Amino acid sequence: MKFATYIRNGAARLAVVDGDALIDLADASPQVPTDLRKALLDGVDLAAAADAALRSDAPRVPVARAEFAPLVPEPGKIVCLGLNYYDHAQESGREKPEYPWFFFRGASSLLAHGKEALRPKVSERFDYEAELAVVIGKRGKHVSQDAALDLVFGYTCFNDISVRDYQKRTPQWTIGKNFDATGGFGPVLVTADVLPAGAIGLPIQCRLNGRVMQDANTKDMIWSVAETISLLTECLTLEPGDVIVMGTPAGVGQSRTPPVWMKAGDRVEVEIGDIGVLANTIVDEA
Amino acid sequence: MKFATYIRNGAARLAVVDGDALIDLADASPQVPTDLRKALLDGVDLAAAADAALRSDAPRVPVARAEFAPLVPEPGKIVCLGLNYYDHAQESGREKPEYPWFFFRGASSLLAHGKEALRPKVSERFDYEAELAVVIGKRGKHVSQDAALDLVFGYTCFNDISVRDYQKRTPQWTIGKNFDATGGFGPVLVTADVLPAGAIGLPIQCRLNGRVMQDANTKDMIWSVAETISLLTECLTLEPGDVIVMGTPAGVGQSRTPPVWMKAGDRVEVEIGDIGVLANTIVDEA
Repeated sequence: MKFATYIRNGAARLAVVDGDALIDLADASPQVPTDLRKALLDGVDLAAAADAALRSDAPRVPVARAEFAPLVPEPGKIVCLGLNYYDHAQESGREKPEYPWFFFRGASSLLAHGKEALRPKVSERFDYEAELAVVIGKRGKHVSQDAALDLVFGYTCFNDISVRDYQKRTPQWTIGKNFDATGGFGPVLVTADVLPAGAIGLPIQCRLNGRVMQDANTKDMIWSVAETISLLTECLTLEPGDVIVMGTPAGVGQSRTPPVWMKAGDRVEVEIGDIGVLANTIVDEA
Repeated sequence: MKFATYIRNGAARLAVVDGDALIDLADASPQVPTDLRKALLDGVDLAAAADAALRSDAPRVPVARAEFAPLVPEPGKIVCLGLNYYDHAQESGREKPEYPWFFFRGASSLLAHGKEALRPKVSERFDYEAELAVVIGKRGKHVSQDAALDLVFGYTCFNDISVRDYQKRTPQWTIGKNFDATGGFGPVLVTADVLPAGAIGLPIQCRLNGRVMQDANTKDMIWSVAETISLLTECLTLEPGDVIVMGTPAGVGQSRTPPVWMKAGDRVEVEIGDIGVLANTIVDEA
């Protein structure tokens, strides 16, 4: 099952993907919340709602003409991992970390598929990071690795676009990861049941103007999704609609010689096998 | 004008403070949202709503019997500053930083006044941090220092309770600042118009079981509220209901010889002059 969040009459609405079209879930089942986080918090049976929509004659919106919103427009938490691929830790001059480097994004940093990523006025060091994102479906605290994947609703693509000089102004990376319109998120969530457990073994790529810049596989993550959930829930409660962004492999722009920074007019794509492609163009902030 | 968020029938509701009582704003003005963030996002005239409530015969809830919620139960963003007092930077072995050390908290870490702070199973290094919190009332991007305070709705107390070993497991402090029920927030917001500009010059204290552990003044912050808002909005949009937590002065438990860690049964209080007292007791996580 595949879900997306699109814009209708200015509002973000949850849809199921039907081939190359979207069906608004609330068109077929008016009681279903139009927000994915709220639907998950309310414990809505989204598989049943999606089935009902797919069997209905509700209008189809062609994906090619849809305007997307961030998959979860306002997650409760967006937990990101740094340095979660050996090769990227190495290119960043770091040893294999002994614990995940967690930082948070806020919702105001999110960016929908097809929207323009804003290269900020204050920096030219605008870098891509292809990542796997996990959307949490069930609440959990102190969850063992064995039970961790039960919390996952599904997986999507994320571009953890980073403003490198701000990321490194202090040891805390957070500000460089929270510029407006830098966290590409979507467009399509694939439910966990139709992917390998923990979304392990999927090819993940970042392309800049068609050139492959990152080319890896989610099996090379240092901490798996299950380990990450178990570690996080030692500390905090994961809640429906929370998002975990699983870190990026080697090939980022800052580690190239010479460095590669994204600039106005560039097109950046994140592709994860069996999930889809997240594409954005870069514009200069006005 | 003073506001608080309290619990009625299991739901968080916005109230105005009337001496030693609370008045539910929606009791006097049913059109006012019960959530402070939503009221600010909707641009509700909260001063007028508070006036109406104070003049009404709506029921008064004695503060002494009220059950509080975090002042903004689900902020869009909670941006925290590290090392924002010279004396605390020094006791932590740091130079005066050249840029704020920003990190984020998530809503699941918040803790209401009077509720129990959870000392986690996984750590004994449970430390207090008295801080001034700023609640944003208006949206802003690229805001000059001169215009920055126009964005502020009001000020309250925060206890940025930190799990020190997790905070230091990697250079990213975020996870040690995001354990469940560790971010004391409230109970009373004082609107900006009745405090000194930027809440500068207020005494700020932390007491543990009645003993003064931190004793400082908000005039000693390295980055003022206006500077912080101006720096943040170079990067991101501040939105109504966002919260900025302004950092802590010297005297934290980890910097004492021997270190002082909070334990079950302890009572910790944050007091900021003209704003109020935030009090919590510590319990061990079950």
